[in-house]
Amino acid sequence: MTTTENSPIAGRRVSPDEVRKSVDDTLREFFEAKAVLASGTSLAGVTAVLRDYVLTGGKRLRPLLCYCGWVAAGGPPGDPVILRAAASLELFHAFALIHDDIMDGSDERRGRPTLHRLLEADRATGDPERDRRFGVDSAILVGDLAMVWSDELLHGCGAPPRVLSAVRPLLDAMRTELMFGQYEDLSTTGTGNPDLATALSIASYKSGKYTVERPLHIGATLAGAEPALLDAFTAFGVPVGEAFQLRDDLLGIFGDPARTGKSALADLRDGKGTALLAIALRSARPDQRRVLTAQVGNPQLNEDGARHVRVVLEETRAVHAVEDMIEERRGRGLAALDRVEIRAEARAALRDLAIAATARTA
Amino acid sequence: MTTTENSPIAGRRVSPDEVRKSVDDTLREFFEAKAVLASGTSLAGVTAVLRDYVLTGGKRLRPLLCYCGWVAAGGPPGDPVILRAAASLELFHAFALIHDDIMDGSDERRGRPTLHRLLEADRATGDPERDRRFGVDSAILVGDLAMVWSDELLHGCGAPPRVLSAVRPLLDAMRTELMFGQYEDLSTTGTGNPDLATALSIASYKSGKYTVERPLHIGATLAGAEPALLDAFTAFGVPVGEAFQLRDDLLGIFGDPARTGKSALADLRDGKGTALLAIALRSARPDQRRVLTAQVGNPQLNEDGARHVRVVLEETRAVHAVEDMIEERRGRGLAALDRVEIRAEARAALRDLAIAATARTA
Repeated sequence: MTTTENSPIAGRRVSPDEVRKSVDDTLREFFEAKAVLASGTSLAGVTAVLRDYVLTGGKRLRPLLCYCGWVAAGGPPGDPVILRAAASLELFHAFALIHDDIMDGSDERRGRPTLHRLLEADRATGDPERDRRFGVDSAILVGDLAMVWSDELLHGCGAPPRVLSAVRPLLDAMRTELMFGQYEDLSTTGTGNPDLATALSIASYKSGKYTVERPLHIGATLAGAEPALLDAFTAFGVPVGEAFQLRDDLLGIFGDPARTGKSALADLRDGKGTALLAIALRSARPDQRRVLTAQVGNPQLNEDGARHVRVVLEETRAVHAVEDMIEERRGRGLAALDRVEIRAEARAALRDLAIAATARTA
Repeated sequence: MTTTENSPIAGRRVSPDEVRKSVDDTLREFFEAKAVLASGTSLAGVTAVLRDYVLTGGKRLRPLLCYCGWVAAGGPPGDPVILRAAASLELFHAFALIHDDIMDGSDERRGRPTLHRLLEADRATGDPERDRRFGVDSAILVGDLAMVWSDELLHGCGAPPRVLSAVRPLLDAMRTELMFGQYEDLSTTGTGNPDLATALSIASYKSGKYTVERPLHIGATLAGAEPALLDAFTAFGVPVGEAFQLRDDLLGIFGDPARTGKSALADLRDGKGTALLAIALRSARPDQRRVLTAQVGNPQLNEDGARHVRVVLEETRAVHAVEDMIEERRGRGLAALDRVEIRAEARAALRDLAIAATARTA
């Protein structure tokens, strides 16, 4: 492990902004090397597309958690090893988002067109159906490339082979958990009758484990953590990650589009089978149920229809119930964090993150 | 490295059928473990879908080459390490095929419906457009899962960490080469005016490097090969792999569907920008060019139109030219194979493979 003594973030309290900046610098450097290899070929374009996608927007939540896991386990702040590993998780997440947006048929992400829509617009052959297909097909490939390169960045992070071997099972678990969560999500979206247990299972896979627990585990393992620390991160990460997802579900419907980066109608039109919707359906009167059934999953839903849905979600106290679930999970996660012995700067950063990502505004 | 003394293929000449069987047994074992984990959950279905897809059909060309690379470099025949690594390449290839079939909009592969069409047919909600989307979306995910699990199988093959570290750059190169080949393919398909240099570049990436050179490199490196052997495999593998692709292009149009496993119209309807087509266009008279332009890439192409195209491909001597290119590449590859010092059983198997996969019948 090499320590970069003159790194801007060495030896100080974990600053999320500085970690984000260092992670972005690492990604930029990785893409510069890729651009040199692709230069002058027909592949220069696709490399630039992926770079711009990864470097524009995003909260860098997974890299930040990975970094905190490393610092918590005693890894030296600012070390290039952890910055590359953390950056690789963002590249993996780009893969997940690109494919997710294709599957959801989403037009916007982070306040910009989704990648398949961007690629479609770039094509402009004059044949809209052919352009649409090119957009989707090339976005599948760019997503695949993001996954392949994330793997390359992680395995080339500079950690010794035996440390990388210890990381492998965590990486395998993280990826499989995401796939399973995505598959459950896909199988239930649009069915109009979500089940609370399934909705919570998806939140646990995609957010609890994939977004929070595994990045912490990977960062900590790179720094040589003992199993007890990983267990503590599970006790913190899974409930806090579920709370992130529950908050996200609420913000998707009640949030300010200017802050969430997506239309307040998109989640409703998709008919995402959230815990919020499952709870509302369970306690809805027949007239309220009719509103939900008619509007949620309706691709033509307008602002007026969305307002009716919001009223039903409030009146059935589903919003209230989800707020309670968020509160309970955040509390449980923070209590687990208080019990574990880790470096104070990591504890403070994790506490701040847990609170910020479950707060009522995006 | 553990040697399985009682393996059916230990200590004998490389038998492709026995290697295929051992690779399939390894895949079956891997999927059995996955099925136990998924048992009783909504994920059991997706695990079974991928298992059936991987275990039905396919020539196991990449595993076989990986295995030959290992034996050539002195690895013990039948070793579980190489069988798992070889099997991982088949799982990676399943990922490539699943996504490729989505991108090509193909209905058939290996004489059966493609995965997205199978999943679409299973859904049967009564809403064809919704079923179609579910088929494509879930096939994207099953493809992703195949990639993730191929990585898991390779890294869990049992080779020591430092050996796996030596394999990593080859794996990274193999995956990126495939992605780049796919992207060039996607960008040029259906444009109606393929360029010979681009067509050959795609054949080099997707077939020369991805299919032949890299599997040999990975197998040899797992057995501790020196760089000189890898160079020899490049000199053998790249031309031979290009010859495979050129043969495949001919068989896609002139082959017997009962043997190729796909319609003799599919490649023509897709308008694949092959070297064959590029050469024909280059030397076509205006009337011949009109036939090619009207029929190739025409989704409504029928058997009559295909016959006209075949006549033009013969008359322009494009078929003849491609046969010459196959011959030249195969000869160059075999000459390189003759020059390298490797175990005799590996040389014989590689020679047989090169000849069989470039022969005039599928």
